[in-house]
Amino acid sequence: MIRRRHHPLATESTRRLEAFTDGVFAIAATLLVLDLTSHALGEVGSDSAMWSALGGMWPLFLNFVLSFGLLCLLWMIHVEQFEHIARVDAVVLWLNNARLLFIVLVPFATGLMTEYSDWLAGRLAMPVVFFFAIFTSWLQYLWVLRHRDVMLPDLSDEEARLSGRSSLSALVIAALVVVAAPFIGSFAFLLFFLDAPFTRLLRGRTRVGPA
Amino acid sequence: MIRRRHHPLATESTRRLEAFTDGVFAIAATLLVLDLTSHALGEVGSDSAMWSALGGMWPLFLNFVLSFGLLCLLWMIHVEQFEHIARVDAVVLWLNNARLLFIVLVPFATGLMTEYSDWLAGRLAMPVVFFFAIFTSWLQYLWVLRHRDVMLPDLSDEEARLSGRSSLSALVIAALVVVAAPFIGSFAFLLFFLDAPFTRLLRGRTRVGPA
Amino acid sequence: MIRRRHHPLATESTRRLEAFTDGVFAIAATLLVLDLTSHALGEVGSDSAMWSALGGMWPLFLNFVLSFGLLCLLWMIHVEQFEHIARVDAVVLWLNNARLLFIVLVPFATGLMTEYSDWLAGRLAMPVVFFFAIFTSWLQYLWVLRHRDVMLPDLSDEEARLSGRSSLSALVIAALVVVAAPFIGSFAFLLFFLDAPFTRLLRGRTRVGPA
Amino acid sequence: MIRRRHHPLATESTRRLEAFTDGVFAIAATLLVLDLTSHALGEVGSDSAMWSALGGMWPLFLNFVLSFGLLCLLWMIHVEQFEHIARVDAVVLWLNNARLLFIVLVPFATGLMTEYSDWLAGRLAMPVVFFFAIFTSWLQYLWVLRHRDVMLPDLSDEEARLSGRSSLSALVIAALVVVAAPFIGSFAFLLFFLDAPFTRLLRGRTRVGPA
Repeated sequence: MIRRRHHPLATESTRRLEAFTDGVFAIAATLLVLDLTSHALGEVGSDSAMWSALGGMWPLFLNFVLSFGLLCLLWMIHVEQFEHIARVDAVVLWLNNARLLFIVLVPFATGLMTEYSDWLAGRLAMPVVFFFAIFTSWLQYLWVLRHRDVMLPDLSDEEARLSGRSSLSALVIAALVVVAAPFIGSFAFLLFFLDAPFTRLLRGRTRVGPA
Repeated sequence: MIRRRHHPLATESTRRLEAFTDGVFAIAATLLVLDLTSHALGEVGSDSAMWSALGGMWPLFLNFVLSFGLLCLLWMIHVEQFEHIARVDAVVLWLNNARLLFIVLVPFATGLMTEYSDWLAGRLAMPVVFFFAIFTSWLQYLWVLRHRDVMLPDLSDEEARLSGRSSLSALVIAALVVVAAPFIGSFAFLLFFLDAPFTRLLRGRTRVGPA
Repeated sequence: MIRRRHHPLATESTRRLEAFTDGVFAIAATLLVLDLTSHALGEVGSDSAMWSALGGMWPLFLNFVLSFGLLCLLWMIHVEQFEHIARVDAVVLWLNNARLLFIVLVPFATGLMTEYSDWLAGRLAMPVVFFFAIFTSWLQYLWVLRHRDVMLPDLSDEEARLSGRSSLSALVIAALVVVAAPFIGSFAFLLFFLDAPFTRLLRGRTRVGPA
Repeated sequence: MIRRRHHPLATESTRRLEAFTDGVFAIAATLLVLDLTSHALGEVGSDSAMWSALGGMWPLFLNFVLSFGLLCLLWMIHVEQFEHIARVDAVVLWLNNARLLFIVLVPFATGLMTEYSDWLAGRLAMPVVFFFAIFTSWLQYLWVLRHRDVMLPDLSDEEARLSGRSSLSALVIAALVVVAAPFIGSFAFLLFFLDAPFTRLLRGRTRVGPA
């Protein structure tokens, strides 16, 4: 809240863009459970049969946790970027919509990943969706940085340079995941979890947090 | 936020109307993915069969992107209108509810458009739903303009005239889409994407953005 | 916003109670469309067959509009009540949760109303759910009025008397709907639409709006 | 709102963490109704057959109410904790994501509880999910307390000691529920409803409310 006071021109639309975004992320994350609930365990005749039926769902659980974690990562990137954005224009709004389109596709890509992991398209579905989510977020942030006198008024030139560089790092990692996924499958996503420390390293200090 | 300070009488209900609206838009947009996830690709025996099964889903992807984009457009029109609205009355709330009713119908109309595009009703479903979404938003804005001394206190007469005119332009385009859709199908929606520049042209300047 | 400034003790929890409530209402209202999308129109061989298949869905459309309208009415009652509430305690939170439980049941009651309108239980489902939604909102408001020195600090004794009375009027109408529904079916809900003017009449002036 | 003024360093991310959290809770709670709507009552030939078909759904209704109530309880614990949290860092965000992962699993656990209550896994599903939701919330609060000079600036040492103790009490009760569930089934959850008074007892005074 206090930060907003530093931006006397913050518009209503920034607040609503955030509300719409938080809503889409929350729903996409929660819809992931439908994959689990719609999985029929069938007739079960004993406790041990029940445990093994649940155990047989492990790829669904793994993909659920993976997709949930990646959605959270993308959401945190959004929060971090908009922490300092005071105003938005129509271009930022449309790039945000494009970004959300790929968020909405996550439950679909998760389904493909679970059911068709034997095929290339199944292994690529999630990495490609994530790459485009990161790509549109990078385009959006580039645009904001270009207009940072209006949109990011309290960002110094040094900070702008650093945050632009860390934004690029996420994009590079996302591209590497797409390249690696056909060979190592979902393990390629482990590269994504390197993004946060890598970003922090590149920028030299933490953004989100008690600063 | 700062703009609100210009409206010392802004009520709680404006904030909650926006929260309810953002929620409905976010859910309607995210539910569109259920059309994709519920589409069974069937048994797949090779990588090439998988690619062609996915390729065969192109009308679903196209309609998904189209409906998502139109929802985003309608949401942005809502954001732009309420950027300056300081207070609402029961009439504005009910017209907003009517507006949201057509937003909620978008996933249903998308389904009709995908499955029954051979028939007139399938081609008209989405244009008609969008026409009514625009029509109710136009009625709502007319009402707000009529009470603009209370509801839009910081809008000049010139601005009121311009925004009323641009609101009408969206309505005219929506009507043209309904007329054109039986002949050219979903291509009629391309007219919708002319709304933003057309509106900007009519009004002479951008509303959302760094002004 | 300005009203909050009159309540220097407004807690965070009031804001979050409202966010949670708006979310539940938005999702319940949007889930109503699933009744429409899951309805299979079957094979259609001509434009006229398509129109008659859609026309045969009229009870679904009617119930959709009815349930959506009633959810909006209940939401507006919530907005109006919390417009002036500055603080909440655990009792208010739990009564709000009970209130939301009946909101969440609306899509279920809508389904019963559509499929089993031949039977008493089908005709009573929605009126009973709405009665309890109104009943819990009435209990909640009674509690708030009892602690109005803390929770409603800017409400005069006269206003408290009037709003308590109008709150009771909604409860009485909801009870009448339950009594009338077995005989006249969904038409009983027309009584609900009398609530707003009736309330206004009882209280002598409008609450929501430019006052 | 007023409390935030006591925290001049409150960040945007606290507000968005709360918005994302409220969204996930609202959707998880509303999705519980899908268990009811997807339950087919089958052909019904008389009013009495209708009543007995509905009556036969009592375990679904009971589990619906139970899961809804437990979600509300977990939500209220979140609201209470964040009432005083002024800032968050990346660790708090990730622990919140972990917490939400178990919230999203509630509709899945509810389904298991309903369909497989004859087996140990069915009886344990919900207690285990709730235990981990409480466990991650306890970890998160421990972290916040450890950094309370920055994150909880207006909490006295005495208050910190008390709230830490009450947080532990919830964890202990959740563990007891897991232990008791195999023997007494869903009745073990009655222990959860003791959490609020037990917490209040331990801390000596109420947190949420007119204080």
